[in-house]
Amino acid sequence: MAHGNRPRTGDLTIGQYLINRLQDYGIQHVFGIPGDYVLSFYSMLEESPLQVIGATREDCAGFAADAYARLNGMGALCITYCVGGLSAANSVAGAFAEKSPVVVISGAPGLSERRNNPLLHHKVRDFRTQMEVFERLCIAGTELRDPLTAFAEIERVLDAADRFKRPVYIELPRDMVHVVPPAAQGFLRPPEELDEEALQEAVAEAVQRLNQAKKPIIIAGVEIHRFGLQDLLLQLAESASIPIAATMLGKSVIRETHPLYVGLYEGALGRAEVTRFVEESDVILLLGTFMTDINLGVYTAELDLRKCVYATSEQLQISHHYYHGIPLDAFLNALIAAHPTPQPRSIPDALKRKVEPLEVEPERPLQVSRMIKLLNGYLHKDNIVIADIGDALFAATELVVHERADFLSPAYYTSMGFAVPAIVGASFAKPDQRIVAICGDGAFQMTGQELSTIVRLGLSPILIILDNGVYGTEVFLHPGDWEYNKIHRWNYYRLPEIYGGGRGYRVTNEGEFAAALETAWHDTSCAQIIHAVVEPGDASQTLCALAERLGARVGGK
Amino acid sequence: MAHGNRPRTGDLTIGQYLINRLQDYGIQHVFGIPGDYVLSFYSMLEESPLQVIGATREDCAGFAADAYARLNGMGALCITYCVGGLSAANSVAGAFAEKSPVVVISGAPGLSERRNNPLLHHKVRDFRTQMEVFERLCIAGTELRDPLTAFAEIERVLDAADRFKRPVYIELPRDMVHVVPPAAQGFLRPPEELDEEALQEAVAEAVQRLNQAKKPIIIAGVEIHRFGLQDLLLQLAESASIPIAATMLGKSVIRETHPLYVGLYEGALGRAEVTRFVEESDVILLLGTFMTDINLGVYTAELDLRKCVYATSEQLQISHHYYHGIPLDAFLNALIAAHPTPQPRSIPDALKRKVEPLEVEPERPLQVSRMIKLLNGYLHKDNIVIADIGDALFAATELVVHERADFLSPAYYTSMGFAVPAIVGASFAKPDQRIVAICGDGAFQMTGQELSTIVRLGLSPILIILDNGVYGTEVFLHPGDWEYNKIHRWNYYRLPEIYGGGRGYRVTNEGEFAAALETAWHDTSCAQIIHAVVEPGDASQTLCALAERLGARVGGK
Repeated sequence: MAHGNRPRTGDLTIGQYLINRLQDYGIQHVFGIPGDYVLSFYSMLEESPLQVIGATREDCAGFAADAYARLNGMGALCITYCVGGLSAANSVAGAFAEKSPVVVISGAPGLSERRNNPLLHHKVRDFRTQMEVFERLCIAGTELRDPLTAFAEIERVLDAADRFKRPVYIELPRDMVHVVPPAAQGFLRPPEELDEEALQEAVAEAVQRLNQAKKPIIIAGVEIHRFGLQDLLLQLAESASIPIAATMLGKSVIRETHPLYVGLYEGALGRAEVTRFVEESDVILLLGTFMTDINLGVYTAELDLRKCVYATSEQLQISHHYYHGIPLDAFLNALIAAHPTPQPRSIPDALKRKVEPLEVEPERPLQVSRMIKLLNGYLHKDNIVIADIGDALFAATELVVHERADFLSPAYYTSMGFAVPAIVGASFAKPDQRIVAICGDGAFQMTGQELSTIVRLGLSPILIILDNGVYGTEVFLHPGDWEYNKIHRWNYYRLPEIYGGGRGYRVTNEGEFAAALETAWHDTSCAQIIHAVVEPGDASQTLCALAERLGARVGGK
Repeated sequence: MAHGNRPRTGDLTIGQYLINRLQDYGIQHVFGIPGDYVLSFYSMLEESPLQVIGATREDCAGFAADAYARLNGMGALCITYCVGGLSAANSVAGAFAEKSPVVVISGAPGLSERRNNPLLHHKVRDFRTQMEVFERLCIAGTELRDPLTAFAEIERVLDAADRFKRPVYIELPRDMVHVVPPAAQGFLRPPEELDEEALQEAVAEAVQRLNQAKKPIIIAGVEIHRFGLQDLLLQLAESASIPIAATMLGKSVIRETHPLYVGLYEGALGRAEVTRFVEESDVILLLGTFMTDINLGVYTAELDLRKCVYATSEQLQISHHYYHGIPLDAFLNALIAAHPTPQPRSIPDALKRKVEPLEVEPERPLQVSRMIKLLNGYLHKDNIVIADIGDALFAATELVVHERADFLSPAYYTSMGFAVPAIVGASFAKPDQRIVAICGDGAFQMTGQELSTIVRLGLSPILIILDNGVYGTEVFLHPGDWEYNKIHRWNYYRLPEIYGGGRGYRVTNEGEFAAALETAWHDTSCAQIIHAVVEPGDASQTLCALAERLGARVGGK
């Protein structure tokens, strides 16, 4: 990547320059839906080396671009003005909340059409409305209104996406697409802030604490993956023999079969032995962790801040004091170089992740936790697991993920409907991996039509739809026979007949599920849709624990 | 309605007060999807006289609430924080653009949970993000953070929705739902601005022009319906014998079989004889008309402003000068009272709307214009027609609508995916009317899952899906064999097998369509889905004319 260098603009149009720079950042696919204000740029995209991946809806395209960005390092969404952009507001917000660098490119009315503020179609309040909305949902944004600054603006915004791992917004009026700027423009990447003295002091303090530690632990968060720091993390952990836990959002940030890995730390929600092991620690290195409510077991986590060294891309805190100007990678590098030598801490056998084979009871009604155990026996390093929100996620936290970064879920923002569109994005980011997605019925009804795109593109994921006929998490949060929690039941397994492809299975007991999973696993010719009718009232242990904690607040009294 | 009066608050909680006031404004149904930050209010809603109508997705609920508001005078959408609200951003934006008074009620984290700015799930940037987004998409908004002002804030915001016919936003933190304010609060509705002297002068000028007119015409816009001014409009037209044209967005603002009605004015896009009749006029009363691009034939309208009296809820313009402080209803009333007496203008026979029977040619491939003609023979005053964007709309403008306000389409904002969710909203606003909806395949794929809700609720509309396998309007705007314009083909007619209800028909020629329509028309037991495979490249005349006008701009060169 050549940020910082003065690009050779030659005779490039603004549209072509944008396309070139997306490729420089590793983007090969753009997700979205055309519309008249962006048609000209769409044609340019289609004629470029970038591949345009259409979706049924703009928010689905947004989820696909998000999943692609998480796996590829950066992703792109291209939509039309307002009716397209505002439809993707939620998926872009999710990318912001969970630090996924999605480049949102929106068409817009031509500047020459805006004289006298006419009521052009798709306009909401004024021509700035969409820009103002996305300023709230993105880390940087620009309207490419001026050829003299367009290239530099593109550089500034793409750099922000790369640096902060958040979505950015580029609005491209349709009469600017083919404009060739009259002069080449440079972009000087702002230097990264690094306070050397603060770094030395912070590392010295962390090392001193580690060298006295008898029970050190690392809690690894999702930023380790976003910023590509997995190797540094492992180097630190392995050289100092420090055990590693992960958070729900950071699940699979290291492979879960690693000898130092002890499991997911979720406070009172998680496995008791992991919680005890973490909370007994005398030095806790929180590295790239989002301190979110669900991530920390809805604040059941009991981490004594005085024992914590808490480093993220945004701050470095040790005990109750803060250091500024220390990037996460610089801190990790310096810490490794300083060779901390804590006492080696042995990991109890009870913490070792073992894939326990499930004794299938063929007539037994379906329970999510047992389905997950069965699935666990199949997973290997060439799988990507995608979990939608609800018990699909809570149960999936029990899966053992074999490689890094192979578990995707919006575990902080918790927007339903992520999984099916994310299959599309993940399929293009990692074309050699087989995707296994788990999705509740409520979530599926929101974005399930993206199965149509999966069929159209000939993808062959395994999709498990958990059908219980209710918004399950809410039933647990706020018990009662509320009408509003009920979900109309569909014959999900017959959707291949609608979309003209894929293979459907309807299963109601463990024997049927085991048989369907076995068949689906070996049929890689097309999408496999396992419609699993689960036992009414079934819920994973994690959900039950969560409901107990959250329920009191939901009442609002 | 008792706005302006001091409400008796008694022991009402904030949640109950809001529910009461929604009912006072004529709302009986609330559309939406629950989520944990709004569960407590949902339970209160379910126990209230209001009926909660669930949807599959929040934006669908938004479209349903919009359609309900257009027909009922006001509508309500209730969703959870960010993942719910931001998902509805596009449908609320459409309600803003087209002046539909939708009350958006969103749950939010409790105020007591927000201390130290924690990373609670669903949060994007900070706790104000959703409020800031909706400030751009609504005419008024409030966060109900303070019990001392909560009731007055509810009054202020609902009054704004009623007065401006635009959406408003109410954010209800979950720990405020059950709070009983310590004191009653009044709300003084700001007095309506009315400048009597300006009114007299404006009316005198308009009357003088009308009294000299030999060829007067009224172009009626959608505001006439939104503000309930149809009777005034007819009184003015009938007492002075002035012919009436309508705009696309205002279609059906008066019944199209009225003797003074001459048709839709769409500039160069519309019927030539209507365009000529309107543009030959010597006084043009534009009443409640949005001067939008598509509405005015993409600026092919040739209206000489010097001949125009242009009155809307926001301004009054005569020729090139403006009057301020004159509400639309006051202007209409004063104009009627002044008894203008233009020369009676005869309406050529060619303009009379006649329902021409279609001679069905059974083997003929399906063409949208001919389908519309056939449908025209069935429509009666108890039908509501809903047209989605694309040729569904352009072709549907040729329908003859028998009563007022029985044609719904987002003809200005032009967001695809409106029609199917709008069926749900319209069904509850007008339970005694049969709904006929027309929708393209691209639009159906965006929100078609709302058919599930239609089946669940036992509604029995007729839905015609126009299947041509492409984003048709875009193909016409920007010809070429672009991959991005292609739509995966579904077996739409088999969706009843997925949703467990409804009756599907697949038709490919005129004879099959005629037979399906005949059967569907008489089967009111369930939803009727006519999957119409139209001839490739088929388009209504209106679309062809539109494409010719817009195509040049789309190229962006």
